[in-house]
Amino acid sequence: MRITLLGGTGNIGEGLALRWAPKHDVVIGSRNAEKAEEAAISCEARLSKEGITCVLNGGENAQAIKHSDVVVIALQYQFAIPTAVAIKDQLQGNVIVVSPVVPMTKDGFLRYVPADKYGSAAIEIQAILSNNDVVSAFHTTPAARLIDLKDTLDLDVLVCGSEKPKQTVMELIKDIDGLTPFDAGPLEASYMVESITPLLINVSARNRMKNSSIRIIGQSIE
Amino acid sequence: MRITLLGGTGNIGEGLALRWAPKHDVVIGSRNAEKAEEAAISCEARLSKEGITCVLNGGENAQAIKHSDVVVIALQYQFAIPTAVAIKDQLQGNVIVVSPVVPMTKDGFLRYVPADKYGSAAIEIQAILSNNDVVSAFHTTPAARLIDLKDTLDLDVLVCGSEKPKQTVMELIKDIDGLTPFDAGPLEASYMVESITPLLINVSARNRMKNSSIRIIGQSIE
Repeated sequence: MRITLLGGTGNIGEGLALRWAPKHDVVIGSRNAEKAEEAAISCEARLSKEGITCVLNGGENAQAIKHSDVVVIALQYQFAIPTAVAIKDQLQGNVIVVSPVVPMTKDGFLRYVPADKYGSAAIEIQAILSNNDVVSAFHTTPAARLIDLKDTLDLDVLVCGSEKPKQTVMELIKDIDGLTPFDAGPLEASYMVESITPLLINVSARNRMKNSSIRIIGQSIE
Repeated sequence: MRITLLGGTGNIGEGLALRWAPKHDVVIGSRNAEKAEEAAISCEARLSKEGITCVLNGGENAQAIKHSDVVVIALQYQFAIPTAVAIKDQLQGNVIVVSPVVPMTKDGFLRYVPADKYGSAAIEIQAILSNNDVVSAFHTTPAARLIDLKDTLDLDVLVCGSEKPKQTVMELIKDIDGLTPFDAGPLEASYMVESITPLLINVSARNRMKNSSIRIIGQSIE
């Protein structure tokens, strides 16, 4: 599959680029084409260091999303929304958009603050990109752990969206060793997943931890 | 400590009664005194079966909270709010109130729906019981697992509240083998924990699991 990471320079976009590049055609997008190309080359070098040879591409956002099957908006909320607006007209209707976006503010502690009108970042992005399927995922996946290629992860990923695109994204998550996807419901349920991000940052700060995440502990039904 | 479980018949109240009874003075409260006394006797019998001898008391709510150090409102949201109102005048100011309460509605999937005015059940209960410290906890602790005394648990509990009462509750959580408390911030952060309850029920239903819970996976800071 061709996967474009918008915001693949630093943070979760870089981590996903590194983890997917061995199995997929990965493109890094940025408002600045040169920065995106540099990020792609830097990812290749990091993978090469681990003995993995693969090619990543980089380009300006509108260029980077061309012919993609999946576009991940790996940007902070305040950049994610204008970026969704900016790519709207170029995006083909069959492209799945993945949102790990979380609206947060700091006020003594970190709060989850979705826009009242939408209730979650995922629904807000879906309202902008109304011709595409938005799937929300990766809210509890620490970027630093994805980027560290020696990290075996062993983490769970909660995924919200419509059934068919959600299944595609869950398969892509399985392509990353150490990540297990869990169906967390329709996109309307995304607010209950998104709010775990600031919660985990608060938990990290208060319990002398870093890169906190969650695992789902359940008993299987026979 | 003297701990009163309001709603100790079935659900998480019964589980906490069973787990705390060997170390604390546990009282089960109900609107119906007889039902509470029966629940206390039933807990004693279950513990006795595991070779643990201890005495639990039961009584009508107003009676059950007398001389307690900690009162847990182990009731569904729609019963928890009127119960908080009902006990307000009897409750001594130094009593810590623990809320595992989560406002939820079913609409295809389970949604977290706190009252707009308060933003979480914990803050709503704090508004009612304004002379007491409310601490929120146990939102991700499956009742069925607490009740099964052979279950070794190995679960994390996110705790929100003011520092001093929160520390007391975190110590009480440590008194239950297999539960690890994590400081998740002030009571104002409780909405981000409460919303995990319906999320986990949705995840259970969609992934052929039951009694889902979470563990916090973090890297410790040296």
